[in-house]
Parts: sequence; structure tokens; C-alpha cells
Amino acid sequence: PNRVIFSGIQPTGIPHLGNYLGAIKHWVKLQNKPGDIYYSIVDLHSLTIPKSRTFMRTSILDITACLLACEINPERAVLYQQSCVPEHTLLSWVIGCLVPVNRLKHLPQWKGRTYIHNEKQMPSVDGGGHIGRYTYPLLQTADILLYKATHVPAGDDQAVHLILTNEFAKSFNRTHGHFFPQTQIISDPTFARIRDLRNPTVKMSKSSQSENGRIEITDYDDAIRGKIKRAITDCTSAVTYDPDNRPGVSNLVQIHCGLSDITPTEACNTAQNMDTGAYKTLVANVVIDHLSPIRERYFELRQDENRLKEILKYGNQRAAKVAKENFNAVRDLLGIQL
Amino acid sequence: PNRVIFSGIQPTGIPHLGNYLGAIKHWVKLQNKPGDIYYSIVDLHSLTIPKSRTFMRTSILDITACLLACEINPERAVLYQQSCVPEHTLLSWVIGCLVPVNRLKHLPQWKGRTYIHNEKQMPSVDGGGHIGRYTYPLLQTADILLYKATHVPAGDDQAVHLILTNEFAKSFNRTHGHFFPQTQIISDPTFARIRDLRNPTVKMSKSSQSENGRIEITDYDDAIRGKIKRAITDCTSAVTYDPDNRPGVSNLVQIHCGLSDITPTEACNTAQNMDTGAYKTLVANVVIDHLSPIRERYFELRQDENRLKEILKYGNQRAAKVAKENFNAVRDLLGIQL
Repeated sequence: PNRVIFSGIQPTGIPHLGNYLGAIKHWVKLQNKPGDIYYSIVDLHSLTIPKSRTFMRTSILDITACLLACEINPERAVLYQQSCVPEHTLLSWVIGCLVPVNRLKHLPQWKGRTYIHNEKQMPSVDGGGHIGRYTYPLLQTADILLYKATHVPAGDDQAVHLILTNEFAKSFNRTHGHFFPQTQIISDPTFARIRDLRNPTVKMSKSSQSENGRIEITDYDDAIRGKIKRAITDCTSAVTYDPDNRPGVSNLVQIHCGLSDITPTEACNTAQNMDTGAYKTLVANVVIDHLSPIRERYFELRQDENRLKEILKYGNQRAAKVAKENFNAVRDLLGIQL
Repeated sequence: PNRVIFSGIQPTGIPHLGNYLGAIKHWVKLQNKPGDIYYSIVDLHSLTIPKSRTFMRTSILDITACLLACEINPERAVLYQQSCVPEHTLLSWVIGCLVPVNRLKHLPQWKGRTYIHNEKQMPSVDGGGHIGRYTYPLLQTADILLYKATHVPAGDDQAVHLILTNEFAKSFNRTHGHFFPQTQIISDPTFARIRDLRNPTVKMSKSSQSENGRIEITDYDDAIRGKIKRAITDCTSAVTYDPDNRPGVSNLVQIHCGLSDITPTEACNTAQNMDTGAYKTLVANVVIDHLSPIRERYFELRQDENRLKEILKYGNQRAAKVAKENFNAVRDLLGIQL
């Protein structure tokens, strides 16, 4: 059976090192394995948190350039803009007609974004939360099933959403005959959940308080050096890997490992004669070595908006072809295809 | 300013006399007035109550043939199938990102379908109701705003939905500059809410218990005669119009008036020397005179499925053109149009 991979990224600014090591680097690796690949810039999802017109437009181009700079290959993977493939919302409507309202109530998108994004808001069913955020997991399910994806590269925090997806697929298949596959999460074994440099008890995040807490993948060398230098560690000067008791230095070890494809033990061996200060210099150099070519490519790619639009258009057409074909089959099963 | 009319009908079987006098006859009349007209077969809405594949497919063709038989002119009005214009669900998603979850809680589609369809189910937020039914008013809002409709032919029971539509349009315009018009209901002055012949305290309905309670617009003459003969009236033999105290005979007067374009007073004058038995014969003849040519046309049209599909395809293309244009403008305002 053909392996089909789907994943999405929101256009909400330049990705940081956490996004890179947690997702994008994994996406790039998957290109070398067999199977169809769909990487979607999920602009419809990002409408759930209203943003300015300029920010939205800029962000879509930014993220496209970033993904290309990170060596997502738009010939290998179908790289496209979600809102240009309208079957996403059509399938989401069909799914919504079969999913009880309460099924979404306890999912993380609604229980409080804390679970996913480390934000502090806790919208409640009786509060001001919007339908878009409430029904977000239905659109996610549609994203995946529209391409009959068998594999989703994601963190374990997405497992509850995958349960919904698989539950829906099973129930649809029961009624209409086998159509949708079951989907599973593929985790990168070297998957790293990078933490905020200034507050290593939380994930590195776009919304973190201090800009110094995150390294964006287009940061200049000096900025990278400065941010790592100011990273919070502890009073012990040796470099050890102990995420629970030494989250700060362990976070640096994780960054080191993620970028150099080595294990924490290997990283600590490398650093055995260093204090954390010297280790910070080493890690900063590793980060700079890795990110500076990405930054170079990014700035070059970002200049040529027309080329970025062409690349997305090409992906949109490829995605639309499959989406249309699969959704037409759904229409036929429902009896609305004449 | 251009007048734009939108209305939708669910493909849920052959329309009955209540649908005809309450909506379709009005739709036909509107064709003689200026303005753009969109009449949509809202198959996505009807997915909120799951039906078999065969029933859905048949119903879409049935309703198309019925509307044409009733003299909806597909050159004058854009007659199309909702699910073939994907911008309906795209716009519905955009609207959902701006409407609080609680805004839909007290609307009739959720409070219990009693209000709209005289059904007995009362799904509650804590019960088994599905997302599709809960978010139904958002798709309705999208239906209307996608064509920038200024007028919606509908009963007063739709007023609460129009409030939501206008509220959303205003709030969108406040943020993004004037784009959507305000929409108003147009009622036919002769608008008749026809009641069940066997139980004149409730509306004539597809889901009513006794088939004898409703006249379908394709019923044969004998069936029409039989159903009107068996219509519940009361012990008074004179024909008077008094819906509160004499719902049965008043319902017959309404059917008479609706089809003959006369007032209840005129109808009662015509019947002044008749008892209700004789009046039933008169009303049956009026109904037969009106419906038998519709039935003839219906059976002719219904035979040629390819022609029906062609007519819908033509409407789908015309609707899609405007929908795409308007939704692209929305995309541009949101910043997701590159």
C-alpha cells in the first residue's frame, strides 16, 4: 500500500529553532523515503486567530521561503497553500455532519491552548471562543483524509487529534464501504522538543515573552551568539544531560544533538572538558553553521515573490488534482455526485 | 444598487403544497422583477440529517425537475447545486473564525427543530447533536453573503438567522471596509403557511405522520381529491375564514386563496352557498387545475436525467463564477490572496 504523508504548518511568522528541529528537519528527511508527500501552509487554520491582512500575506510568503531554504523540495513534496484547495472545507463540512458537538469539547484546541502552544488563555464553552477554534480538529481531520494520508509527522501532542481522525475514518468506512485509511503518527527518533532559552521549563514558542528565548531560523550570527550566551543555565559548570533537574543546559545539549545528529551521550563526551560557558560557544557555532546557509538562501528566495507564488501555484495544482479526485469519490458515496 | 436574491431548498423529496405556496410560487413570481437571482439546491445542508446515497441522488434530480416544472426559468435564475460551488464552505469557515461558539446555541436549528420543521427531536448541547446541525446557520450566512444577496425570500421563522447574517456582515465590514450588503427578508403578501390536512394545528410537513396530511405537487388527481375529501374540518357546515377557531376549513380557504390569488373574503363569497363537503370538491378542483400541468411537466422532465444534469451544470458554472470572484475579494481582504 502506498505511503502518503501529510503535514501542515501555520503561516505565523519565521519559524524558530523549535519548529525547525521539531518539524521541518523531519519533513526534509522524509523526502528521502518512499511515498507521496503533502506539506501544506495551513492559512485557514491560522485564521482562527485573527491577524492583519499584511501580516497574513507576508507570513505566507515568509514560510514558503523558509521551507524552501530549509530544503523542502517542491518537486518531491507537494508544497501548497491550504485555502487554494477548497475541498479541505468541503470535507470538513461532511465530517462535521457526522461528529457530535461534544466530541470536540475536551480536545486541546478548546480545553485551553496551553496544551499545544503554551499560551495562557483558557477559553471555555461558555466564554468567547469562536467556532473556528472549536471546529479546528475537524479541519485537521479533513486535511489528512483528503489525501488519504497514512502517516503524519507530528509530536505526541497530536495523538488525541489522530484518534478523532481515525475514529471518523472508521465510522465513515462502516457506513460507506472502505474508503479512508487509518493514519498513524511518525515521530523522528531524534525528535527534539526544544525549550525557551530564557525559560527552559516551557517550549520554545513564537509567543514567548522574551525574544531572547527563541532563535529564529533567519537570525544573524551575532544574534544567535548573543541569545545562546544569555541562555539560562544553572550554577553547575559541567555539561550533563538531565532534562528534569538541569533543563537549561540539557536544552543546549538537545539543540546540539538535533543539529549534529548525535546522541546526548556523544554531545556530553564532546563537552567533557568544557564549562557551560565554553559549551555555549560550541553550541552557538553549531547553530550558526547550520542556520547561516539557510538564512542566505532564505533572503535570496524571499526577494523573488513571483517565484514563490509560482512554486505555490504549482503545488496548489498538484494538491487540487488529488483533492478533487478524492472528494469526488466522497461525493459519490454520499449521493451528491450526479 | 443592484438587487440580488438568494434562496435555497433542500433536496429532501418531492415538495408538497406547503412548500409550493410558501416558497416555490414566490420564487417564480420574483423572476418577473428586476435583480439577479440565485436559487440553490442546498445538498450540503441536507447532509446534516444523514440519508442514503440513493435517496440523496434521486432527491437532487427530483427537486430540480420539480422546480423546472413549477416554471423556475434556469436562464433567468441561477439554479444550481450548492456542493458544486466550494466557496460556500470556504466562506463558512471564515465566518466561523469570527462567530463565538455561544452565538449559535439559542438559534432554532439547535434549540429543537420544532421551530422550523415541526419535528419532535430536541437535541441539546449535551446530547447527540452534530457539529453540522450546530453550525448550519454559518453555512446559511455564507450562502447569502457569497452572492452579496440583498434580499432573501423566506418566512418570518428565518428572521433570527438573518440577524446573524447581518451582524456578521457589519462586523466584517467594520474590520475590512465595506464589502457585504445588509440583507432583508422579502415576504410574499399572499404568503400562506399551509397546514397539515389531517392535523391543521401543525404545518404541512414532509415528516408528518399521515401521508394524507400533505399533497405532493406530483400527486395524481384522484389522490388529491381523496386527500382533500378526508381533510379534517369541524361540525359547522358553512365556509368561513377563522384560522384560530376553525383551522381545518380555514386551511382549505388558504389553499384556495394561494392558488387562485384571491383573498379569504373572496374565497368565502364564492363558497357562500356551499357546505364544507361541496367546498372540498371546489378546492380539490382548484388544486388539480393548478398541479396537473406541473405534474405532467415534472414526469416529462424527470425522465431525461442528462438534461437535468446539464441544466444544473450550467447553473453551477454561473454561480461559481460569481462565488469565486466574491470569495477572492474576501481572500484579498484577509491577506490570504497572494
